[in-house]
Amino acid sequence: MDNTAAKNWDNDHFMHPWEGMDSLGNNDRTFVEASDGVYVTNDKGDRLIDGPAGMWCVQVGYGRDEIADAMAEQARKLAYFSPFNNTNSVASEFAREIAKRTPGDLNHVFFTTGGSTAVDTAIRFVHFRNNMLGQRNKKKIISREKAYHGSTYLSAAVSAKERDPLWLDKLTNIAHFLPNVNPLMRRADQSIDAFLEEKVADLESAILELGPENVAAYIAEPVLASGGVIVPPAGYQKRCIDICHKHDVLYISDEVVTAFGRMGHWFASKEVFDIQPDIITCAKGLTSGYAPMGAAIFSERLIADVSGQHGNGAVFSNGFTYSGHPVSAAAGLASMRIIEKEGILEHVRTIIPHFQDRLQGLADLPLVVDARGMGLMGCIQCAYDKKRDSDLERDYELGARIDAACQERGLILRPMINMCVMSPPLVITSNQIDRMFDILEDAIRAVDSTRGSA
Amino acid sequence: MDNTAAKNWDNDHFMHPWEGMDSLGNNDRTFVEASDGVYVTNDKGDRLIDGPAGMWCVQVGYGRDEIADAMAEQARKLAYFSPFNNTNSVASEFAREIAKRTPGDLNHVFFTTGGSTAVDTAIRFVHFRNNMLGQRNKKKIISREKAYHGSTYLSAAVSAKERDPLWLDKLTNIAHFLPNVNPLMRRADQSIDAFLEEKVADLESAILELGPENVAAYIAEPVLASGGVIVPPAGYQKRCIDICHKHDVLYISDEVVTAFGRMGHWFASKEVFDIQPDIITCAKGLTSGYAPMGAAIFSERLIADVSGQHGNGAVFSNGFTYSGHPVSAAAGLASMRIIEKEGILEHVRTIIPHFQDRLQGLADLPLVVDARGMGLMGCIQCAYDKKRDSDLERDYELGARIDAACQERGLILRPMINMCVMSPPLVITSNQIDRMFDILEDAIRAVDSTRGSA
Ligand SMILES: Cc1ncc(COP(=O)(O)O)c(C=O)c1O
Ligand SMILES: Cc1ncc(COP(=O)(O)O)c(C=O)c1O
Repeated sequence: MDNTAAKNWDNDHFMHPWEGMDSLGNNDRTFVEASDGVYVTNDKGDRLIDGPAGMWCVQVGYGRDEIADAMAEQARKLAYFSPFNNTNSVASEFAREIAKRTPGDLNHVFFTTGGSTAVDTAIRFVHFRNNMLGQRNKKKIISREKAYHGSTYLSAAVSAKERDPLWLDKLTNIAHFLPNVNPLMRRADQSIDAFLEEKVADLESAILELGPENVAAYIAEPVLASGGVIVPPAGYQKRCIDICHKHDVLYISDEVVTAFGRMGHWFASKEVFDIQPDIITCAKGLTSGYAPMGAAIFSERLIADVSGQHGNGAVFSNGFTYSGHPVSAAAGLASMRIIEKEGILEHVRTIIPHFQDRLQGLADLPLVVDARGMGLMGCIQCAYDKKRDSDLERDYELGARIDAACQERGLILRPMINMCVMSPPLVITSNQIDRMFDILEDAIRAVDSTRGSA
Repeated sequence: MDNTAAKNWDNDHFMHPWEGMDSLGNNDRTFVEASDGVYVTNDKGDRLIDGPAGMWCVQVGYGRDEIADAMAEQARKLAYFSPFNNTNSVASEFAREIAKRTPGDLNHVFFTTGGSTAVDTAIRFVHFRNNMLGQRNKKKIISREKAYHGSTYLSAAVSAKERDPLWLDKLTNIAHFLPNVNPLMRRADQSIDAFLEEKVADLESAILELGPENVAAYIAEPVLASGGVIVPPAGYQKRCIDICHKHDVLYISDEVVTAFGRMGHWFASKEVFDIQPDIITCAKGLTSGYAPMGAAIFSERLIADVSGQHGNGAVFSNGFTYSGHPVSAAAGLASMRIIEKEGILEHVRTIIPHFQDRLQGLADLPLVVDARGMGLMGCIQCAYDKKRDSDLERDYELGARIDAACQERGLILRPMINMCVMSPPLVITSNQIDRMFDILEDAIRAVDSTRGSA
């Protein structure tokens, strides 16, 4: 098949996540074909800085022979084992190494195939446990506007990116959503402190309104990633977990994005936000994206509640053919060793201030509504008229134009509508950070200067 | 960490699928560490025939350098791309090669991370489509007793292995289950033909009772795998699809187990059962288990209903970070090429009669209640008293004893309670099939001869 025919086929028949049904067949997606370090190369041979690190996941960068070698070696030795019946030392070692790096007693590791299945598993376990404890009504999950926890029916039920058209069915009786915690949304006369109090009160009011006897868990990304790098006011996470525990509500910290170095630590919950969750979910950076894998990690206490003498003959009938896949585990172990050997966590902690400085440096550009971020995550939110909520179609169009201008200049972004999101590979250097923001600045100025032609 | 400490840790903290909560910490699972061809090697160095091919998935056998090399090469070149925004020629080529092998117009490929997410995606799409067609009540999914379609909340909702203790919450308003289609369950005076008529009538009655305007789809494994290799009476699948289409009910053929050679063809739906489904779900054999991946494959017609000029601004807001993972796609392509180059489909078709003969040869052994199978799938169902439904605890114990006796003799089985399930790597030879059944026969006789000591 020649190249054009292959591209046409791709356009028509390879259905991608979040496929727009109108444009199916006319998407003309960029073919990404090669990579090295923080760069990807498209099929025209352009080498671009990968702003979002794939999709918040390629922590150690591309082209890592150590990971490729580890995967190949494992595939040759034992490409698969059934986790239902057997176990394997590579998967087991990876579980152990993860548990060593989690805060406190979060030491029971359940492997899944990605973030959605990790969240799905976490919620199913919470319900399972409450049933075993005789709390059959304690089932509601509190989440937040702009949260993204995945794409299975259950993980989607606790997600709320309300700009997605609502043609999909959504499980409605399980989730309760708190209002947006983005400080940008606060009233003009409201201080950050007052906003914090309000957001914390939102959680407690919700628990009390629903009744603590009906609320099983609160699920939260420490920083909301796909919702647009929303950083809650300082202290928010800690205040929330205290409220949860006061009312016997479990805290699920969804660290699919924030774990494995994105915030300068293996996990961000304790080290960055001073919280000790009951469950952590993770994926993405777990294998630096080299192989599909996710995990739900449960605290010792949670498991003790329902196992051993409290086991009651119960089987947690949940799990996947690929739970603990040995090749994925080998990739994860190799990635972990690179992070350790090269001091990547330290590197990230060193480089964060520069990254955040450069990000803030764009705040006053034309078109820019907000510049926000934390760790190695940043978002430049744009609009033609600097208003917060503008027309969705124009926002999409603006995002697409900025994205195109960036690509021309050597930077690939993740255009989330009008939000330019950056979460580069953790190995990015100070110079590469400069290059990334220089390009973005230049691209935004160029788009602004031609705004008449839009 | 020394070996014993590592094993203890594994037992306590590596939570496996279908974890028994009583026995957490005391499972003492077999460590599977190495492999070659149809064999796996445990940590004691015993080399065993892998009866279930991992978990119905290692089609081309273990230790395939071609696959390991392809994965490593892809991991070096481009270990990850974001399927949300970009595309990639390897993932795209794999989608195309899959679509070439599906029956009829099943040519829209949506990649997922495994079987559960493929089924979850398929059902979400069916609902999405019906909403777009203005059929907001047409949502029920008809499934069957003993069906297994996965472990996300939604795929579990259409599964019904009723022997699993019921501590997990189950979405109850979406699924309707038809009675067991296993001919073994028919009344003593009932002919196979009469049983077939009854089972087909079960489907039509259910549709009419629920109202065709409320029934979105029927989901069915052509042969029910995890339920215990249940082979419906001949002609059942065809009769069912005709009834579905008569009542405007979609047919989802869950080929997670039966595709990629298990029945001697790429897909079994058309070639083996003469049906043209609206959606096929697959996983497992898709990559020969070397890397996690699944797919939901939609017919041209289904997509046409809701795309292009009928797109209506809708976004199918579903998908995964690892949808179309390039390393998984490279593994899948390499596995496909091996199947083709080595004529493995032809080999399977040649060897099936011998496999099924040997299987039937065990039917009259002591302890054996039923010997059944199709393609390279077989099940020997055992019981102490040859009654169909005996005490669950004794069934588990019997299965475990047979399994242990097989392992001693060089065969690993998948003990599903009292059901010895076989679905070996497709490359198994006639001699290896003989060896497998010789061991199983010997093991069953040995267990029978010591039944007093149970
Ligand atoms: C915080 C968070 N949770 C869960 C998910 C879902 O993960 P996956 O796409 O691997 O299923 C994502 C994906 O973007 C995420 O950002
Ligand atoms: C027919 C069928 N569908 C779906 C699944 C779920 O697949 P996975 O375990 O990869 O999620 C299975 C797994 O055994 C299966 O046999």
